[in-house]
Amino acid sequence: MTDDVSPTQPNPEDVTQQTAATLTAIRDRSPLVHSITNYVTANFIANTLLAVGAAPAMIDVAEEAGVFAPVASGLLVNLGTLSHQQRDAAREAVPAATAAETPWVLDPVAIGALPLRTELATELVGHAPGAVRGNASEIIALAGAGAGGRGVDSSDETTAAAPAASTLARNEGTIVAVSGAEDYITDGRVAMRVGNGHHFLTRVTGGGCALGAIVAAALGSRGEIPALHAVTAAHIIFGIAAEQASGRAGGPGTFVAHFLDALASVSPEEVASGARVQVETVHEAARGRA
Amino acid sequence: MTDDVSPTQPNPEDVTQQTAATLTAIRDRSPLVHSITNYVTANFIANTLLAVGAAPAMIDVAEEAGVFAPVASGLLVNLGTLSHQQRDAAREAVPAATAAETPWVLDPVAIGALPLRTELATELVGHAPGAVRGNASEIIALAGAGAGGRGVDSSDETTAAAPAASTLARNEGTIVAVSGAEDYITDGRVAMRVGNGHHFLTRVTGGGCALGAIVAAALGSRGEIPALHAVTAAHIIFGIAAEQASGRAGGPGTFVAHFLDALASVSPEEVASGARVQVETVHEAARGRA
Amino acid sequence: MTDDVSPTQPNPEDVTQQTAATLTAIRDRSPLVHSITNYVTANFIANTLLAVGAAPAMIDVAEEAGVFAPVASGLLVNLGTLSHQQRDAAREAVPAATAAETPWVLDPVAIGALPLRTELATELVGHAPGAVRGNASEIIALAGAGAGGRGVDSSDETTAAAPAASTLARNEGTIVAVSGAEDYITDGRVAMRVGNGHHFLTRVTGGGCALGAIVAAALGSRGEIPALHAVTAAHIIFGIAAEQASGRAGGPGTFVAHFLDALASVSPEEVASGARVQVETVHEAARGRA
Repeated sequence: MTDDVSPTQPNPEDVTQQTAATLTAIRDRSPLVHSITNYVTANFIANTLLAVGAAPAMIDVAEEAGVFAPVASGLLVNLGTLSHQQRDAAREAVPAATAAETPWVLDPVAIGALPLRTELATELVGHAPGAVRGNASEIIALAGAGAGGRGVDSSDETTAAAPAASTLARNEGTIVAVSGAEDYITDGRVAMRVGNGHHFLTRVTGGGCALGAIVAAALGSRGEIPALHAVTAAHIIFGIAAEQASGRAGGPGTFVAHFLDALASVSPEEVASGARVQVETVHEAARGRA
Repeated sequence: MTDDVSPTQPNPEDVTQQTAATLTAIRDRSPLVHSITNYVTANFIANTLLAVGAAPAMIDVAEEAGVFAPVASGLLVNLGTLSHQQRDAAREAVPAATAAETPWVLDPVAIGALPLRTELATELVGHAPGAVRGNASEIIALAGAGAGGRGVDSSDETTAAAPAASTLARNEGTIVAVSGAEDYITDGRVAMRVGNGHHFLTRVTGGGCALGAIVAAALGSRGEIPALHAVTAAHIIFGIAAEQASGRAGGPGTFVAHFLDALASVSPEEVASGARVQVETVHEAARGRA
Repeated sequence: MTDDVSPTQPNPEDVTQQTAATLTAIRDRSPLVHSITNYVTANFIANTLLAVGAAPAMIDVAEEAGVFAPVASGLLVNLGTLSHQQRDAAREAVPAATAAETPWVLDPVAIGALPLRTELATELVGHAPGAVRGNASEIIALAGAGAGGRGVDSSDETTAAAPAASTLARNEGTIVAVSGAEDYITDGRVAMRVGNGHHFLTRVTGGGCALGAIVAAALGSRGEIPALHAVTAAHIIFGIAAEQASGRAGGPGTFVAHFLDALASVSPEEVASGARVQVETVHEAARGRA
C-alpha cells in the first residue's frame, strides 16, 4: 500500500460533516459509557458525559465490570489511579467488551515513568481497543519508543509522537489520538491534526480524561460514521466547547463550569463551522515498522 | 387498618410547616453525616451537606466505620462504587448505627442490573434503615419486583414504582423515597408526591446521591419532626434549591455551583411557600402484600 | 536558648517579601506534587495545584508510590480516606521521599477520634516531614495532648493548640501549621499568625486539604526561602485568594470556582500587600517539654 492510493483519505469537508453527525449521534443515542477510571477526575468525566448527551456508569469492581461491559455502549479504561481492584476490573471488562463488540478506549495515564501501569497498558492494548488516547509521552511509551514523562504532563510535543502513534495504530489495528496544543489522530494511514482547544485545559485536572470519555461516547454511538471520523469529532467537539467556555471564564475555576455548559449547548453547526482540522496521509517514513 | 381511618394522614399545611422546621433544625444542629459513598460524587455530597448546614465525614474503612457511626448524627450508605473495603465498612457501620440509634439511609445505586450490589442492598435493608432513597428501577429491584435498569438512570416512571415503594416501606418499617420528575415518599400508609426540582438535575452526576445525603441530615436533626415529614422536607428543600439555581445557570456546569449557593441561602419561608406537594393515602391495592 | 536571643526572628516585612518570592518560585518552577490523598477532595487539590502554578500527580498504590516520590518536587500525605492501599503507599513513599530529600507534608485529617489513622500519623510524623498541617484538634491529637474532635471539624480554637504545635515542631524538627480563623505556623521557636481567609472556606469541603497541597508546592520550590517562610506564604496566598474570591461569589458553590480563578491570577504584589501576619517568639511556657 502506498500513500497516493490510500482509499480512505477524506477531505476536510467530510471531516466537518462527520463531526456534526457524531455530535447528533451522541445526543440521539445517549450512549451508556462504562468507565473504569481514576477517582481524581471521575466526577468531571461523569459530568462531561452527561453534558455532551451521553450517560456515565462507573463500575470498577471485578465482579461487576465483566457483567456490565457487554451491556454498555462503550467502555473507557483510564489508568490514572490504578488500584488492585481496578486492575482486576479492567482485566475482566476489556475481554468482555471485545467479545460483545462494545468499543473500548484505553487512556494510558502516566505510563512510561511507572512500570506497573506500563505493563498493564501493554497487556490491555492487545485486546483490540477502539481507540487509544494519551499525551505524547504516553503514546511514545505505549509504542515502546520512549521512557515517558513526569506523570500526567506532556513533555514531548505532539509532532514528535506522530511516528509512534502511527506505528501503534497499525500494529494494533486501532485509532491512536495524541493530545496536545495540536491533537494528532491516526489509523496509521491517514492522520487528522485538530487545532481546536484552549490553554485553560492545561490548568484544570482531567481534560485528557474527559476527552477520552467523549471518544468512548463517540465510538459507542457512531453507527455508520467511520471510527477515525468519530474519534476526530470527539476532539473537535471537546476543543470547540473549550473555546466557547474560555470567553466566559475568568480563570481555570470558572472555566470548568462554562466548559460543561458549552458541551451541553454547542450545536452540530457550530462544531462543523468551528473545526480547525487538517487531513494528511501518513508517509512511509513516519509509519515506522509495523 | 383501612385507609379512611389512618391516624397519620397529614394535610399539606402540616407538610410545608414541617419542611421549614426541618431546614431550621439542620442549620441549628449541624448534624454530622457519616457517609460511606462512591468516589464519583463524594465531593458533591460533602459540599451539599456543608451548603445546607450539615457536616460531612467520609469514613469508609472497616476499622473506622464501626467506631464512627455511633457518634455521628446520621449515616448514609450509598452503593455507587462498591469496593470490597466499602462492603466491609457498611457491614460494620450499619449494625453499629442501628444499635446506637443513629438513623441511617440506604441509597441502592444501580441495583437490579448488578447482582453483587443487589445482594448487599437486600442484606442491609433488613437492618432498620431510617429511609431508603432511589430511583424507580432501584426501588422496584429492592422490593423484589423487577430486574432493574441500565445503571443509574431511571427507566421506570415514579408512579410505576409506587406499589413497590409502599410494600418495601411496610415490610421494613421504613420510609421509602422514589426520586424522579415527581418524587414519591411513603411510609406504606401515607404518601407524599413532591413536584419540586429542575431537569438540570438529570444533566449532572450525583443529584440523587446528594439528595440521599440531605435525607440523612434531615433524619439526623429532626427532633420531634415525624420521619416521613423530615424525608419529604429533604426532597422539597433539594428541589427548591434546584429551581432557584436553574434561573441563574447557563447550563449544567454553572448549575452545580448555583445549586450549592441556593442550598446555603434558601430560607425556611421559601421552602414552605415554594413546596409543591400532594398528600395521599396509600390504597389497599397499591400496598401489595406486606 | 532563650526567646530574646532567637536568631531567626523575622520581621513582618521579611514575611511579606518572602511570601511574594514563594508565589513567584511556585510559578517559575512548577513543582510536581506527588499526592497520596483522599478521594473526596482529590479533584479540588489537583485543581488548586494547577491554579497556583504547580503540577499534581496522584499516585497512591504501593508499587508506584515508592518509585515516584523521589522524582517529585514535593509529597503530600493526606489521611482523609485511609484505604489499606494508601496506608501501604504512604509507608513506601514517605521513607523514599525522605531519602531523596523530597520535602513531604503530613495532613493528619480527623485523627484523634479514630485510632487507626492516629496510629499511622504518629508513625509517619517520625520520618522528618517538612511540615505538618492540620486543624487545632488534629494537631493536639498528634502532639499527644488531647482526644481529637468530631471528624474534620475543628472544635478547638487555634490558640488553644499553639502549645501543642510548638512542642510537636520542636520534637520532630518540623514546621507545624494550625489552620483556623487565624492560622498559627511555627518551628517551635518563632510563630506566625496569619489572619487572611474567608468564612466561605468553612462551607466547602477540602479547604484544609488544598492548603496542605499548596504547602507542599511551596516547600517543593522554595530554593533559598526559609521553610518557615514558605509554609507561612502558602497560608497567606491561600487566604488572600479566598478573600478575592469571596467578593465575586454568591455562596459556597460559586466560591470554589472563583477561588481557583483567584489562585491563578493573584500577583506577588497582591499577596505581599494583602498579608495580615504577626510574628511572635514562642515563649517558654508555651513550648512545652521538648
